[in-house]
Amino acid sequence: MKLYTYFRSSASYRVRIALALKGVDVEYQYVNLLKDEQREVAYKQANPQGYVPALVTDDDVTLTQSLAIIEYLDEVHPKPPLLPENPIERAYVRALANIIASDIHPLNNRGVLQYFEDELNIDSEQRKKWYHHWLKQGFDAFEAILAAHNLKGRFCFRDNPTIADLCLVPQVYNAWRFDFDMKAYPLINDIVVNCNSLKEFDIAAPHNQADAA
Amino acid sequence: MKLYTYFRSSASYRVRIALALKGVDVEYQYVNLLKDEQREVAYKQANPQGYVPALVTDDDVTLTQSLAIIEYLDEVHPKPPLLPENPIERAYVRALANIIASDIHPLNNRGVLQYFEDELNIDSEQRKKWYHHWLKQGFDAFEAILAAHNLKGRFCFRDNPTIADLCLVPQVYNAWRFDFDMKAYPLINDIVVNCNSLKEFDIAAPHNQADAA
Repeated sequence: MKLYTYFRSSASYRVRIALALKGVDVEYQYVNLLKDEQREVAYKQANPQGYVPALVTDDDVTLTQSLAIIEYLDEVHPKPPLLPENPIERAYVRALANIIASDIHPLNNRGVLQYFEDELNIDSEQRKKWYHHWLKQGFDAFEAILAAHNLKGRFCFRDNPTIADLCLVPQVYNAWRFDFDMKAYPLINDIVVNCNSLKEFDIAAPHNQADAA
Repeated sequence: MKLYTYFRSSASYRVRIALALKGVDVEYQYVNLLKDEQREVAYKQANPQGYVPALVTDDDVTLTQSLAIIEYLDEVHPKPPLLPENPIERAYVRALANIIASDIHPLNNRGVLQYFEDELNIDSEQRKKWYHHWLKQGFDAFEAILAAHNLKGRFCFRDNPTIADLCLVPQVYNAWRFDFDMKAYPLINDIVVNCNSLKEFDIAAPHNQADAA
């Protein structure tokens, strides 16, 4: 298998953690978003959307969208599982993952910030305020749902990592990078410390990638 | 079961289609987003995020996030299936669903347009341009992936509706409402016509809801 990745892409980071946890051997192909390599013809033949990550399977099929890729990996490499067995608990984990993947990350993505700068003339202070606004909305919800369902252990769901943790850790990494104050989120912070103590999360981190600038 | 819904919420619309296809009996509880009822204490006790939809199960557990709810419904009511059986094909369907749910819808959501108006003083013409920009980016990718994988039949995946169709139809409904020109998307348009010819899609449509204004 081959993964198209960029060190700072948090969607790529999610998939890198999944691959590490599954112990799947994969070749990394680096796509430099700062040089717009994701928009080049060669890459768009692999992924017409021009986003990273994309996973090329052993049968040479290209899969896109980080959550779809992670669910695929979980189906073809079931150990260790990245979702609970019980449908209600699976829905809880998927909801947490989607708070990050649908309600925070798309709004704070590079393309959005670029559009703000190029098309709407929104200055860096306002861009940062926007960035923090969606982090706060999302993390407030994430923390409240962790508290309400009372299923948290060392990780979002009990004591093994799930797709919720795979989405959370890269988003918190971005929050740190953009000077967002995380002190209102003790449950999230505890989970992130526990995740980052695992070597599988560590080797997937942006600063440990070969393309880290 | 009970579904918190708002007629024009496209995430609610997705779940309404799923419930209709599954033939599940559900009580609708209407949350008027124009009156900000989703931010009231009573609703936030059900869903701390204050978004619709939310599904209250027969065991009185509240599930949130439309895709998590739909995957749950598919797991507890397997017929008719809303995902293919093969993992590669499941990943294709989930990727299409996520293009809508992560790359278009969050960027064009009511909260974003409200923030533009209230905080950034972005006028209605610029808001419309923004709205169309993300529709174009997302639908271009959706159409290209439909063409590349060659799995389209009457629906996104062969001849039965999947979660990809459940996400696509509400997004196209929004595109029409915001005067977006759909003529560049023959594959999408064909699928939407086929979906809307089914009574399950029709009864879930915004204009057929009891809370339609």
